[in-house]
Parts: sequence; C-alpha cells; structure tokens
Amino acid sequence: MSHPQRPSGRAFDQLRDVSIERGFTCHAEGSVLVSFGATRVICTASVEERVPPFLKGKGQGWVTAEYGMLPRSTHTRTDREAAKGKQSGRTQEIQRLIGRSLRSIIDLKALGERQIQIDCDVIQADGGTRTASITGAWVALRDAIDGLLANGKLVADPLRDQVAAVSVGVWEGVPLLDLDYAEDSACETDMNLVMTGSGGFVEIQGTAEGMPFSGAELDAMLALGRVGIARLTELQRTALEKAKA
Amino acid sequence: MSHPQRPSGRAFDQLRDVSIERGFTCHAEGSVLVSFGATRVICTASVEERVPPFLKGKGQGWVTAEYGMLPRSTHTRTDREAAKGKQSGRTQEIQRLIGRSLRSIIDLKALGERQIQIDCDVIQADGGTRTASITGAWVALRDAIDGLLANGKLVADPLRDQVAAVSVGVWEGVPLLDLDYAEDSACETDMNLVMTGSGGFVEIQGTAEGMPFSGAELDAMLALGRVGIARLTELQRTALEKAKA
Amino acid sequence: MSHPQRPSGRAFDQLRDVSIERGFTCHAEGSVLVSFGATRVICTASVEERVPPFLKGKGQGWVTAEYGMLPRSTHTRTDREAAKGKQSGRTQEIQRLIGRSLRSIIDLKALGERQIQIDCDVIQADGGTRTASITGAWVALRDAIDGLLANGKLVADPLRDQVAAVSVGVWEGVPLLDLDYAEDSACETDMNLVMTGSGGFVEIQGTAEGMPFSGAELDAMLALGRVGIARLTELQRTALEKAKA
Amino acid sequence: MSHPQRPSGRAFDQLRDVSIERGFTCHAEGSVLVSFGATRVICTASVEERVPPFLKGKGQGWVTAEYGMLPRSTHTRTDREAAKGKQSGRTQEIQRLIGRSLRSIIDLKALGERQIQIDCDVIQADGGTRTASITGAWVALRDAIDGLLANGKLVADPLRDQVAAVSVGVWEGVPLLDLDYAEDSACETDMNLVMTGSGGFVEIQGTAEGMPFSGAELDAMLALGRVGIARLTELQRTALEKAKA
Amino acid sequence: MSHPQRPSGRAFDQLRDVSIERGFTCHAEGSVLVSFGATRVICTASVEERVPPFLKGKGQGWVTAEYGMLPRSTHTRTDREAAKGKQSGRTQEIQRLIGRSLRSIIDLKALGERQIQIDCDVIQADGGTRTASITGAWVALRDAIDGLLANGKLVADPLRDQVAAVSVGVWEGVPLLDLDYAEDSACETDMNLVMTGSGGFVEIQGTAEGMPFSGAELDAMLALGRVGIARLTELQRTALEKAKA
Amino acid sequence: MSHPQRPSGRAFDQLRDVSIERGFTCHAEGSVLVSFGATRVICTASVEERVPPFLKGKGQGWVTAEYGMLPRSTHTRTDREAAKGKQSGRTQEIQRLIGRSLRSIIDLKALGERQIQIDCDVIQADGGTRTASITGAWVALRDAIDGLLANGKLVADPLRDQVAAVSVGVWEGVPLLDLDYAEDSACETDMNLVMTGSGGFVEIQGTAEGMPFSGAELDAMLALGRVGIARLTELQRTALEKAKA
Repeated sequence: MSHPQRPSGRAFDQLRDVSIERGFTCHAEGSVLVSFGATRVICTASVEERVPPFLKGKGQGWVTAEYGMLPRSTHTRTDREAAKGKQSGRTQEIQRLIGRSLRSIIDLKALGERQIQIDCDVIQADGGTRTASITGAWVALRDAIDGLLANGKLVADPLRDQVAAVSVGVWEGVPLLDLDYAEDSACETDMNLVMTGSGGFVEIQGTAEGMPFSGAELDAMLALGRVGIARLTELQRTALEKAKA
Repeated sequence: MSHPQRPSGRAFDQLRDVSIERGFTCHAEGSVLVSFGATRVICTASVEERVPPFLKGKGQGWVTAEYGMLPRSTHTRTDREAAKGKQSGRTQEIQRLIGRSLRSIIDLKALGERQIQIDCDVIQADGGTRTASITGAWVALRDAIDGLLANGKLVADPLRDQVAAVSVGVWEGVPLLDLDYAEDSACETDMNLVMTGSGGFVEIQGTAEGMPFSGAELDAMLALGRVGIARLTELQRTALEKAKA
Repeated sequence: MSHPQRPSGRAFDQLRDVSIERGFTCHAEGSVLVSFGATRVICTASVEERVPPFLKGKGQGWVTAEYGMLPRSTHTRTDREAAKGKQSGRTQEIQRLIGRSLRSIIDLKALGERQIQIDCDVIQADGGTRTASITGAWVALRDAIDGLLANGKLVADPLRDQVAAVSVGVWEGVPLLDLDYAEDSACETDMNLVMTGSGGFVEIQGTAEGMPFSGAELDAMLALGRVGIARLTELQRTALEKAKA
Repeated sequence: MSHPQRPSGRAFDQLRDVSIERGFTCHAEGSVLVSFGATRVICTASVEERVPPFLKGKGQGWVTAEYGMLPRSTHTRTDREAAKGKQSGRTQEIQRLIGRSLRSIIDLKALGERQIQIDCDVIQADGGTRTASITGAWVALRDAIDGLLANGKLVADPLRDQVAAVSVGVWEGVPLLDLDYAEDSACETDMNLVMTGSGGFVEIQGTAEGMPFSGAELDAMLALGRVGIARLTELQRTALEKAKA
Repeated sequence: MSHPQRPSGRAFDQLRDVSIERGFTCHAEGSVLVSFGATRVICTASVEERVPPFLKGKGQGWVTAEYGMLPRSTHTRTDREAAKGKQSGRTQEIQRLIGRSLRSIIDLKALGERQIQIDCDVIQADGGTRTASITGAWVALRDAIDGLLANGKLVADPLRDQVAAVSVGVWEGVPLLDLDYAEDSACETDMNLVMTGSGGFVEIQGTAEGMPFSGAELDAMLALGRVGIARLTELQRTALEKAKA
Repeated sequence: MSHPQRPSGRAFDQLRDVSIERGFTCHAEGSVLVSFGATRVICTASVEERVPPFLKGKGQGWVTAEYGMLPRSTHTRTDREAAKGKQSGRTQEIQRLIGRSLRSIIDLKALGERQIQIDCDVIQADGGTRTASITGAWVALRDAIDGLLANGKLVADPLRDQVAAVSVGVWEGVPLLDLDYAEDSACETDMNLVMTGSGGFVEIQGTAEGMPFSGAELDAMLALGRVGIARLTELQRTALEKAKA
C-alpha cells in the first residue's frame, strides 16, 4: 500500500536530525545542548551534596528535574512562568516525567547522600521537547556521574543503563516516528515512549487527541518507538565518545 | 504455574467491589458517589452557559475537570491545597487526565456554547482515585447531558460513547487488575488505562516504579485492562438504569 | 399574635432534622458526617504527635481547624480555593471560629504535646455550615480523644464539656431558630451562637444584615439559641451511644 | 463590693482618652487620625466613581474596607503582609467587619453608582484597633459624603445614622469597658460591640478566651458597651463640629 | 540668563521644608516621622537579636529595609500590596536601595550578631518618597544604635557616618533640587543621590525619562545634589540634638 | 604610575571579547545571542499587535522587557523563579532597567499601537548580565523593527538612536572597564552606564559596595564608560552589516 508522504517529508520511521553537544555551558557538572531537528533544549546536571528533607539519613541519593521554556521558544510568545507566579500543569507533568525517567536507570543507594538536579530549558520548540529533554538529560547525567567517579567521590558507577525517549503518532492511519510540531498537531494519536538502552519500558504515555485508537495502532506505534530508541541510545554513546565542546 | 495470592486476596483479574450512586448531592446537574472498594470519590457535573475565553464564538462547548482530596481522605493527613495556596503537580496531572478522557467521547460542537465542569473530590483514598474519578465522572456527565436533553437545551445527544478507567500492574511478575493502595505500593509497574465502551484506547499511562518492564508484561497488562473496562462500562450502564438516590 | 409561617414551614423554635453519623470515613481518628437538614459536612479529627512551632516545649497540646466547601456543594458552582490559590476571608473566619470553639472546652495541658487537626468539608450547603461543622466536629474530637484514652496515650480525659452551635435570626420581626439558606437570605439579622453543654457562652456573633437590631430582639434570639443548643448537645450524646457506622 | 483596680487604673466604665483628628492627610476625600489611648489608626475614605463588577448596573453604590498594621505598630515587629504575599485571617476578619459596619448605616441606593473605599491603617497598636478603626472610619466616611453633597454629586444624604464600636470584657469577674492590650490579654472574655448613634446593634462578637461566660456576664458587658458607644458617638459629633486640621 | 520660575515657586537650589520628628511611635527602638514638604514617611528601626540565615555564625550583623505606601497616600488610591499578594517591582527596588544605603555607613562586624530592620511607610506622597525615607531612616537607625549603646549591648559605635538622599532633575534645561511630584512629572531627567555626611557618594541613580542627558547636565545635577545633602545632614544633626517627641 | 594587573589580565580600559550573533533562534522577530566574555544572553524581540491596557487608544506603542537566568547559568545552581512562584527584587530591577533603556531611543508614537516584548535570558553568567542584555536587546529590537519596515507595517523608522550598556568599577583605587564576576566581587564601587550611540546618558546607576566613592572616582568611571559604549555601539553596527545566522 502506498501512503502520502508525511508532513515533514521524512520516511515514516525516520528521526529528525539529532545532535547532542556536550559541555555547552561551563558551570554545570553536566551540560548538553540537544537538538531534535529545530527543537533545541539545554540540559544541565547539577550535583549537590545534600538530599531533600524526606531522604535525610536514609543512606541514598536523589535525582530530580525541572523544565522550562524560554518565552519566545514558541511560535508566538508564551507568558513567562516566573512572571505569572506559577508553573503550568503541563510544565509540572513534564518535569515529573523527566525525573521519574532518570531515576529508573540509576541506583540511588549507590549514588550516596547527594542530589543531582536536572534542568531542561527549551530555547527553541518544534515538537518533542520532553523526549529531547530526557534524551539529552541522560547524557548530562552521565557526564556529572563521570565527574564524581573521576574526583573519587564515587567509586562505583550508579548508572545501570541508558534511557532515551521518543514520540510516535498515528497520522491518517499511518504510524509516524518522532513528530515535529506540525505533525503532532495533525496526528489523531500521540504517544511518548521512554525506554532503556537494553529495551525495557520505563514510561508509556499515549493519548487519543480525537478518536480513540485501536490495539493494532498501539502495536504499530510501539514497534516504531523501539526503532527510534535504539537509534537515540546509539547517538548518546557516540556523543560520549567525542571530546566536550 | 501457581502464584501466591495477591495482597488483597482477590483473583488476579478481579475488580474491587464497585458501586456507583447517582444523585448523591442535590445541587449539581450530575452527582455521583463512586466507590472502588474503599476508594470513594464524589463526582459532580456542573453545566454553565458560557465557554472559556479561548472558545468564545467558536460554536462549540467544553468539558473540563478539577480534582481534589479531602485532607484526611488519606492514611495520614495531607496538607490542604487551598491552605498551601497551590495545587500539586500530581493534582494537576490527574485533573488534566480526567478532562482529556471525557472530551474524547463527546462531540463538543454538538454540546453547543456551554461548558460542563467536572469536579472529582476524593473523600476516602485507597488507590485508584483517578480511575474511579473517570469512571464516576462519566456517569455524572451522562446525567447532566440527559438533563439538557430533557429540558430541551439540547436536541441531539453529544455523547458518542462511554469512557471508564482502571489500573493494572505487575506484582512479583504477575499482572494484577485494579490495584488498591497496598498493592500499588508493592508493584514494580503501574499502568492506568482509559478506554471507551466500544474498546478503543483513550489514554495509556504506564510507569516502571523500579525495574523497566518488558513487552510481554505490557501485553499482559493490556489484556487485563480490557477485561476490567468491559466490566466497568457494564456497571455504568446498570447504574443508569436505576432511579437516582 | 399570629405570625405567618416561616419560609421552611418549621415551627419558629424547631431545628431542622439533624443527623450525626460516626465513622463516616475510615482513616481519621474521628470521622463524622453531620447533617442539619440539607446541609451536610464531613468532620474529621486527625491526631498528630507533634505541636505547632509556637508551642514546642511548652508542655501543652493544640486543637486547630480548617474548613472548605466542595465546589458544587453550593447552588451554583463556587470556584475551588485550591485552584484560585487562596482561601477567602469567609473561609478563614469560619475555620478560626471552629478552632476557638473546640479549644474552649478542652484542657490543652491535659492533652499533652500533640495536636488534633479538625477538617470540616461541606459536601452540600443549605445554610448553617459553620454551626453544623462545630456540632459535628465536637463528636469527631470526642471519638479521637476516646481513641487516645483507649490506647493508653491519655490517662485522663482532657475534654471538659460539650460544645455545639446554632444560628438564630429575626425574620419579619420574629426570631427563628436554625436558619436554612432561604431563611438566612430573608432575615434582617443573623446570629451564630456557640455554647457548651452546661449552658455557657463560647462565641456570640450577631450581624445586622440590613437594619440594626434592638436589645429586645437580641434577648429573644439568645433565648431561642439556648433551646437549640440544649437539643443539639442531646443529639451529640445520643450519637455517641450508638456504634459507629 | 470593692474590686481591685483594673490594670490600666481607669474606672471600670471609663474609655481611654479618645481623639479624632480630621484632615490628617491631604489626598483622601475623608482622612482621620483616631486615637483610643495609645492605639492610633489612620482612616481614609476614597470616593471612586465606579462600583465592583457584581454591582454593575444595579443602581446602587458600595462601601468596602481594608485594614493593615504597620510592621512596627506592635510591641515586637510583625511581618509585613505585602512581603509575605498574603493577608492573615485576622486581617481579613477585621476588614470584613469594618465594611459590614459602615454598610449598615448607609443607604447604598442613595449613594448612587459609586464606591467608597475605606482604609484603616494602624500606626500604633495597644488593643482595640478594630473598634478605633470603625469609630474613626465613620467620621472619614461622613467627610467624604459631605464632599459629595458640597460638590453636587449627591443631593440627598445617604447616611442614616452614626456607627461606632467599643470593646468590653470580663476581668477577674468584673466587666470592663474599652480594653487596652494588657487588659485584653488578661480578660477571660472579650466582646466587640458595633452600635449606631440611635442605640441599635450592628454587630456583637463575643469570645470566651478561657472559660465560657454566663448570661449575667453577657448582660453586664452589653450594658457597659452601651455607655461607651454613647460617649463615642458624642465624640464623633464633636469632631465634626471642629474645622479640619 | 533668566529662567522661568520652577513649578513649586522655590529657588532652583532650595529644598522643600524638611522636618524630622523623633519618637513618633512608641514601640520601635527608633521611630521618625520625616517630611519633605507634603511627603511624609514613618521610618522605624527595629532591633532583633538574630541575623538572617545566610549570616548565621559569621560574627556580623545586618541592616535591611522594607518600604510601603498607604493606599491613599497617593493622589488617587493605589491598590494595597498586601491585598494584591505581591510587592511591585518599584517597591522592591526602593527597599533594596534603602537597605544598601544604610549598610554603607555601618560597620556590620561592630554591630554584632543582630539585625536592624528598617520600615519606611509613606503616609502622604508628593515626590521624593525614597529620598525622604533614607534621610529619615538614618535618624531612626541612629536612635536605635544609641539605645544599644545606652543599655550596654554595644560598647563601640558601629555607625561611621551619616547618610542622606535627595533628588535632582533637569527641567526645561535647568537643574532643580528636591523635586516634588509635579516637578518630577515635568522633568526630562531625574536623579537620586545618596551621599554621606562627609561628602562621599553611596548611590547615583539617574534616568532620562525622555531625551538622554548630557555630561554637562550630569555635572550640574551633581553639584546641586551636594548642596542638598549638606543641608539634609545638618538637619539630621539638629533633629538629634532635640529631645524626642 | 604602575598598577598591579587587573584580575582578568585585561588592560584597564579593555572590554571582554564581545560577540553578537543574530538570528540565534527561529521564531522571534529579533533573536540575538550576545556574549561579553563568558557571559551569554539570549535576547529576543517579539512583536505583538496590541498594547497594554493603560495605552489602549492612546495612539502609541510600547516596549517592555523581561529578564531571567537559567538555574545553572550561575556557578552554583540558583533556584528557578517559576518554581519559587515569584521573581526576585533583583530580577525586577534589571528588567525594568532594560525596558526603560530601550524606550529611551524609540519614538513610541511612530511605533504605532503595537508592543515589542524583549526577553533577555541568561544561559551563562560571568558578570555584566544586565549590560550584555541591553546591548544585545537593542540589536534584536533593530531586527524586529526592520522586519516591520520590510513588510510595510511601518513606513518610518521609530528608532532614533542606538543604546548600549557597560559596567565600570573601582578596584584598588583604579577604574576598570567591563567587570567580570571575579572583578565585580573585588570592586569597592560598581557602576552601570547606559548610553546612546550619540553619547547621551540614559541611565547611571552607581553603588558603593563598601566605602563611598569620591567625585574624582566618579569622573574617571564616566570617562572609561564612554570609551566602552563607543566600542559597543560600533560592534552593534558591525553585527547588523553581517547576514543573520
């Protein structure tokens, strides 16, 4: 069966151009500029030698995340959350997702009583900001952990696996990988997959924007997502082999 | 293979006792007390003859939801969000989920320029408050719509289908249906499914609390979820056949 | 002199049907559903083994209260305070009143260094939510204290008396007991009385909504209030004699 | 029977020195510095040619009030509410009381579609700030209304009566008039009375701080309050006869 | 060259009538009512035997300031910041300026581990509220420090100098000293100078409201400012020689 | 006279390496990445075809600015203002300064009834973030205005001049140009100058961090600032001659 070309002109199972630039800013223990096509996110990992109150004295560490968008990262300007005095429900949902995703592949006991704070700040948005954030944040986390190993604060590596994320959707009945903004708006169904380097599922969040989706569509999206995650984790490894910027 | 009995003693594919009591309070156009075992939620639907600003003059209606927990609905007291001055990220995530779920089965154009505001307030919590909320809210919405049809404000039914929700999880490698609080805490993986009466998927939200889950576990959870949803939508229909309280 | 019948059809000195259902929810140390006619309030008492900072090390306990209304407890929907990010002046006034009323009949030194947190949440409103809250909260407090006595955390009873509350008003020159919403709106004057089981005054709050009221009207309202309080404290005792739900 | 002298050394039925200085600041339509002993409050009345949204087009006006304390009006410094980002429950309770009290003696229809905003700001506190506020605010309101009459915006006087307020209490079994801070702290019972120039009751707010109070004590406090109000309304009239500062 | 008379009718280098009244309120360790013409500000200094968290154990003290305006200190009423729930950018800018200015002339180590909290509350505004605040606050600070010296809590004087502030501007090309509100609105350029008693600069804040200003205008404003500061610090000394109110 | 080398090793009158990269992000009408050494700020200009409420129907436009720092733009992580729910006093001060600076060189009437919203977001901080922001924001504003001229929405150029900003300070008695973070911390005095391309002063903000500064030091700083501004405005012009990124 022949299908119309997808809006972006990419093949149905093709990621956007992905780049992962390490050492993007100088102060953070891990700092990555990740691009999924025109979507660009600064991901930093900050090591803090303290844990949140609910973990005091429990002999384990913590990884948490915050997310933000620069006001003009979007097509028309979005109000600044700091000026409005609160984070939107969407922001909170995304930063909770990033935090859970990263905690799924780290041994918090092995991390010791310290916290790694992830910040994902979108400087240009074109769909998939949460999946780019998770994919980039893992590299920033890896760099921060490597720093702790290098300076002797950690003797064993607490990271058990890689983690990356990608979106999939159904557009005119066809499953698509890695939606940009235009495609995301056109899709009936939209799913974000967070998976490990070894192929385990960490998060599945699928939403029917219009009509409900079927079990067959779900299966097709999952298959496509696996392909994307395999490619993204490979790109993470390649980025780590290069010297930092 | 024989398994140990699940913590609640129920069969692996058994829902808790579910009750759906209509007309629970007197002012709302739809008012339901839904119980999934010890989890009890008041769901009301309020009809307002106006739409939010972003829909003014667009010739369509809106359905939105808010969610809350009474401070002592939980085992130990939770701080009151009104006193803290903000809703938690969890609260916002849940109320956005409830709203999206209900919008998936209503024709907003057929609803006309009016808004139906859903409120789900948990008076007793024992796991699954969001799934009980969605399941009960649909019945409250149905009652509110029936009122509009009865008084002539609507001439055609904008509801296209039923919608209900249930949780599934993996516990010691075994998939379980409809987790209570103790089971939810013990599960490695936890998934909420929102599905329609005709078996379409509206939302899938699966999270690995500890170790990632496999494709096989995902399939098993989806199968179990379908069973639960079929039973819940049947219970919704049964409730609607009875006279209100 | 003959008077027109009051709006509710009750005798001028007649309370609404009052019910006090103990053990309404399962987690709280005291949990009561109180109804004054169509006004229904969930009152819970939560025992916490700590005191607020200003009482640390003072050798005494504390009782405090919070109050809320479900958004659709009212005839038309009221905005959710948690979503607005602040409690109204009315809410704060009522919860301060409930707290003071309960502290008036408890020996805080005999309570020991612990706090009992009262939550009064209105699920259906038809006037008199604050008087129903106080009346029900005392029963929840009684149950929580009895639990502390039963498990040996307290050896002597810190409760010195009962406390209950009722509204009185003047309508077309005639004093009425226990106003429902329609009567409250019609009254020129409205007074809330909080009194003990032994007939002492704890709080008097009288407000002329329109024309000021006279000393004679004040006396008549006080007399009527005494009758109502005597009946309510009797109903509290009756409720405590029954087994919990 | 002989009693010990009251803490302030005043006679039991004696007000503190009261002064009412009109024209205290230059911008407001009414501006009064009122002193009840060491308690000093700036009361201003601001005329605004608009009404709040809920009164638009209803053919009537509105009177409302706000209350504040300078941070160092108190013995030890109190946090600034503007810096904390919210008004306390006590502040809201007091400003609601001031607003209701003033609305009780004005014909809002005769005021026309305009609002008079009262601000009561305590610059020095020694007990009785709410009673001084109400007593001073009425004079500021009178001046603002006189301005509207003088410039022809009003042709008939909407003020029906005077209103003033005073506190009474029971100390070692003896009723006292107009409590200063030290006396207020020592009293078992504390009551604020708001009454009109013609002797009608507008508000009664009595609270047992420790032990409940009896009907006899209530009667004694009411009698004392009437004496105080008569004197205060006389002082208001005297102040109005003098030229402004 | 002859110029038109400035709007206020004063000479170009003439301050408004300045008065500095000490002991204006009774609770604060320093309390000053300062007037620059019709601008009147209550400045209090509160001594607290603790330091903010960031200075704990550092062996030094702190001076900080807060600023507010009574709602009707202005020509038309300004919304109350406590009611709006936040302080404006202007308020924060001014209170930061006052704090920095006072810290510039005090030896914080010599102050010891205590904080002096300055509150500047404008009761009547006619331009120059920040300069009047700084000028008055220094006198309140001086009185508070003298109290600490008198009661032996301090043995050496931590104040190194006086500090005062004045505004200068350019109006129709002519530099003016100490602008009132009407002049401030008419000026093209507006500058606030904070200087010490010995003639050092602490803060210079100059703003071109319309057209940029030249180096020659800057020099002329600085010269005028020096004249004003010399006069204001003399008035501070005179005020300290008089007994308190 | 010989001086020790300044901390950064630069000549006393030497700017850091400055780069101005246009077209840094794709959605904004003007988008600039400006670097003053290690300080990097994204400045965007967003054109909105509406004006704020206070300018409705006044026949003029508006330019306003917001400022933020990414949490890990700083040496140790700074809390996210959106998460804390409010902007600091420092943030508000800076964004008000940026807005005033840009409004000083634009003819708001010639801009027409539209608003240009400037956003300055610091991605890496090493001193001078506000001066870099102003210098970069002017280029973004220039690009946005050029867009309006190009598409015919404007027929005449409302920009009257360039504007740029630089810091100067006194370190060990020597005036320095363009302080980095280490130098800023070491300086006794710190001044920010905002000047136009034709050499007029827009803002002068000088603060003595420790000891007050003298008139001679002020003159020396002003001379140095003029040099820096001349160089920065030249760099702005050079950047505009190049094609966008």
